Amino acid sequence: MATKNAIHPHYYHLPAVHKTRLPATAQAYQDYAIGKNPRQKSANRAVKLAESLSNILNLQIETTIQRSLNRSNLDVLSIEEKHNTPTTSPKEDISAKWREIHGSRDWDDLLDPLHPWLRREIVKYGEFAQATYDAFDFDAFSEYCGSCMYNRHKLFDKLGLTKTGYNVTQYIYAMSHIDLPQWLEKSRFVDTWSKDSNWMGFVAVSDDQESKRIGRRDIVVAWRGTVAPSEWYDNMQRKLEPIGHGDSKVEHGFLSIYTSKSDFTRYNKSSASEQVMREVKKLVDYYQKIGEQVSLTITGHSLGGALGLLNAYEAAKNFPNLPISVVSFASPRVGNIAFRDELYQMGIKTLRVTMKQDVVPRMPGIVFNESLQRFDDITGTLEWVYTHVGVELKLDVRSSPYLKKGLNLVGFHMLETYLHLVDGYHSSDSGFRADAKRDVALVNKDCDMLVDELRIPPNWYQLANKGLERNDHGRWVKPKRDPEDIPSPTMESHNYHELELGDSYGIGSWFGVSI
Amino acid sequence: MATKNAIHPHYYHLPAVHKTRLPATAQAYQDYAIGKNPRQKSANRAVKLAESLSNILNLQIETTIQRSLNRSNLDVLSIEEKHNTPTTSPKEDISAKWREIHGSRDWDDLLDPLHPWLRREIVKYGEFAQATYDAFDFDAFSEYCGSCMYNRHKLFDKLGLTKTGYNVTQYIYAMSHIDLPQWLEKSRFVDTWSKDSNWMGFVAVSDDQESKRIGRRDIVVAWRGTVAPSEWYDNMQRKLEPIGHGDSKVEHGFLSIYTSKSDFTRYNKSSASEQVMREVKKLVDYYQKIGEQVSLTITGHSLGGALGLLNAYEAAKNFPNLPISVVSFASPRVGNIAFRDELYQMGIKTLRVTMKQDVVPRMPGIVFNESLQRFDDITGTLEWVYTHVGVELKLDVRSSPYLKKGLNLVGFHMLETYLHLVDGYHSSDSGFRADAKRDVALVNKDCDMLVDELRIPPNWYQLANKGLERNDHGRWVKPKRDPEDIPSPTMESHNYHELELGDSYGIGSWFGVSI
Repeated sequence: MATKNAIHPHYYHLPAVHKTRLPATAQAYQDYAIGKNPRQKSANRAVKLAESLSNILNLQIETTIQRSLNRSNLDVLSIEEKHNTPTTSPKEDISAKWREIHGSRDWDDLLDPLHPWLRREIVKYGEFAQATYDAFDFDAFSEYCGSCMYNRHKLFDKLGLTKTGYNVTQYIYAMSHIDLPQWLEKSRFVDTWSKDSNWMGFVAVSDDQESKRIGRRDIVVAWRGTVAPSEWYDNMQRKLEPIGHGDSKVEHGFLSIYTSKSDFTRYNKSSASEQVMREVKKLVDYYQKIGEQVSLTITGHSLGGALGLLNAYEAAKNFPNLPISVVSFASPRVGNIAFRDELYQMGIKTLRVTMKQDVVPRMPGIVFNESLQRFDDITGTLEWVYTHVGVELKLDVRSSPYLKKGLNLVGFHMLETYLHLVDGYHSSDSGFRADAKRDVALVNKDCDMLVDELRIPPNWYQLANKGLERNDHGRWVKPKRDPEDIPSPTMESHNYHELELGDSYGIGSWFGVSI
Repeated sequence: MATKNAIHPHYYHLPAVHKTRLPATAQAYQDYAIGKNPRQKSANRAVKLAESLSNILNLQIETTIQRSLNRSNLDVLSIEEKHNTPTTSPKEDISAKWREIHGSRDWDDLLDPLHPWLRREIVKYGEFAQATYDAFDFDAFSEYCGSCMYNRHKLFDKLGLTKTGYNVTQYIYAMSHIDLPQWLEKSRFVDTWSKDSNWMGFVAVSDDQESKRIGRRDIVVAWRGTVAPSEWYDNMQRKLEPIGHGDSKVEHGFLSIYTSKSDFTRYNKSSASEQVMREVKKLVDYYQKIGEQVSLTITGHSLGGALGLLNAYEAAKNFPNLPISVVSFASPRVGNIAFRDELYQMGIKTLRVTMKQDVVPRMPGIVFNESLQRFDDITGTLEWVYTHVGVELKLDVRSSPYLKKGLNLVGFHMLETYLHLVDGYHSSDSGFRADAKRDVALVNKDCDMLVDELRIPPNWYQLANKGLERNDHGRWVKPKRDPEDIPSPTMESHNYHELELGDSYGIGSWFGVSI
């Protein structure tokens, strides 16, 4: 180390050759502008994309000047120090205020500035939604592609969510009778756990300690969405279907995923709708019978937020007196004005967390043109009746000094980016919270949004050797999954002994489609 | 499981919706044709590329028909069974025949059919070359990017090469005074182990047991190349520089990497040339002094093969009576005819392992046009004097039923693909060896060449979470590298106490460039 900068003038040496490089900032901007392809031409395409986007969506794309300004706010040293600080504050007892936190007064006076108790609850539900991504088997070379990698008893342990004080009671599987390109994650092989269904989320319930802290027994339904917007929103059918018995209509792709079932499948002999309603009813009945106050909180990101709204609608029909709220992240529009009004009338409270730079909450209304790599405004062609519901918490990627500001369609939509911004959110007119504690590194799990100074590699969330392990003979093989983690169609048992009950409950009968 | 195919006719179910999909084979061909980008447009580009390539290089690109024929040969079950079989045959004592195996008779009668003893030796040296990739730190977010992840004492243990019976005695570092775009792997940050140098390989020597088996004390030099061809061969300078005192000339980019040094660096106060020669001399002197028969075997893949040839040339000048041979894989042309003749006169034996479908051994002569994604024939413009040396062992990707045949520029060039084909090679007119034992999964480490039936994910060689680890506070951080694994410029110590020796030996004085 001593000789690091030592110069030996008596030594002859050739003149150093310097490559013509961009300054680090510009380089990083170019390399990572769209977070996937580290080639200059991509950066150019990103810039074009930025222009067309800002024209269509009035996004304020950062300039490098704004960016460097922003980055100068970043004290990297303080981040290094943060490595040895806790990632959460001590939990407060919010039981006295739980109804307001749950939205009973539409989060009036709680959002701007954001109440710290509410912030913690939003992050808690967001992490349940994130779990549906982190535990999902995306490996097309796995016979279990499209399932959850762990059984419901291990899920929270594996993901470090045990401290949340909730227990998973049921997994949800979904299929679709409508062809939704790029929605269903499928194994490449025939001998797979399921050809038709994907793991779509879970039902969980708060344990005694957490229930005491939050003032009631909280049932949570977390819906999985899709990782990258382009996976599905350019394929949205933009076709409305009636729901219930009134004028309410919803996007029929979402409805299909929520309500499809087939006896020829193992995991969707009952639909996602039936699976969820059955489990929620079981829990509500049980806890109400022993005299507890019960609430239902539904969460989801992107497509998952849309499914959550259908779920809430159905739950309100089935449980008229149950406090129901939805905490959605980056959710697109789902239905028409009549649908929104019906949700209001039923007392469903919806907190919509959105981001100024994310395009998905503006869907339907624009579509992503995969081949042309640009957005097309289809307001003209679209039967323009979609509308948003509930209360909005609007985030801004520019508020965080940790984030790159170059256009990043994927990064702007990622749930971890949302959770980071919620953690740092104080009010609409203030900067990032100095005492935000959540681990910033999580943002780069599946994208490239963190400024280089943080030294967190992009897209770092990955298995060692993609799950291959070296056996005793030195051969790299994919180990068999633990039998306990192989998805089993447990719903089927319910399906039979609870069938009457299910029917008498008219599950799914609210929908225009017969199931 | 029982209900898997159960049908309940008394249940109503909606008709199944079938996506319009390509048959699995065609789909796999499309998705993975170029092994990187699983989009259709890439497949199209791959087809265009295939056409231009076959025009220029007369490559026989497989048709899907040929391919499916080929794939029908694959008995996947036998592969499943192979999972529990050893990856190598028992080692034979080759001491009686070592000079022929080492090339003393230019491998006459040993290549077609390939002598099993020679095959094992080729794979052994190839795995040394592969080690220079597997242990290389490619992480631009690491302050040690461009170094070896492990110190020389741990290297073979970490990579499972202990059984080879060699010990690493020295690491080699290189720099270049010529701007060779995309050659130097660099950290994004300023506080990095080195701004100018990369780990470029190692010197190793056989232990007593292995020396007994192979009939002499074998000194090995393994040179690192580049992972993907497009990283460098489109940037080759195609400019010849004199080497030695005769008419010999070599490509000046290779020469620059081999001979550059600067007192302003920590790891290249001496050049790669000086580092290697010094270490080899130390070992040769030591073992000859105690009366042992010594040999030098130099190996490398791609660029590494080119550096190996310069290394052999220099070694022959310095050690006139030392048996020297080069086992190169996918090596481009290096020098002119005079250079080749001089190598012959000095008795250097070169076994050049090439692949019919790999373009790199045809370089220089064509260049890859990054922007147009095609090959340009530059024979016209090129000062056309480059020539190959030595004996060729020509592989054919079509000989293996385990490999995809769709055009895959990266996969065709990968060293692991070469080693797989060597392991399966019997003779120029026979198919893949039925009793080939090497682990097939290794092929997909950094590419996508294995047929889907094998269920080995593409590009699987990766660290868990890119090296991030969760600390006690639940934060994801990059752990500090073990002090023992932090590269130290050990050469410098030599540099001083062995300086006279080095100079008196005229190291590097054979080159036209003064160092």
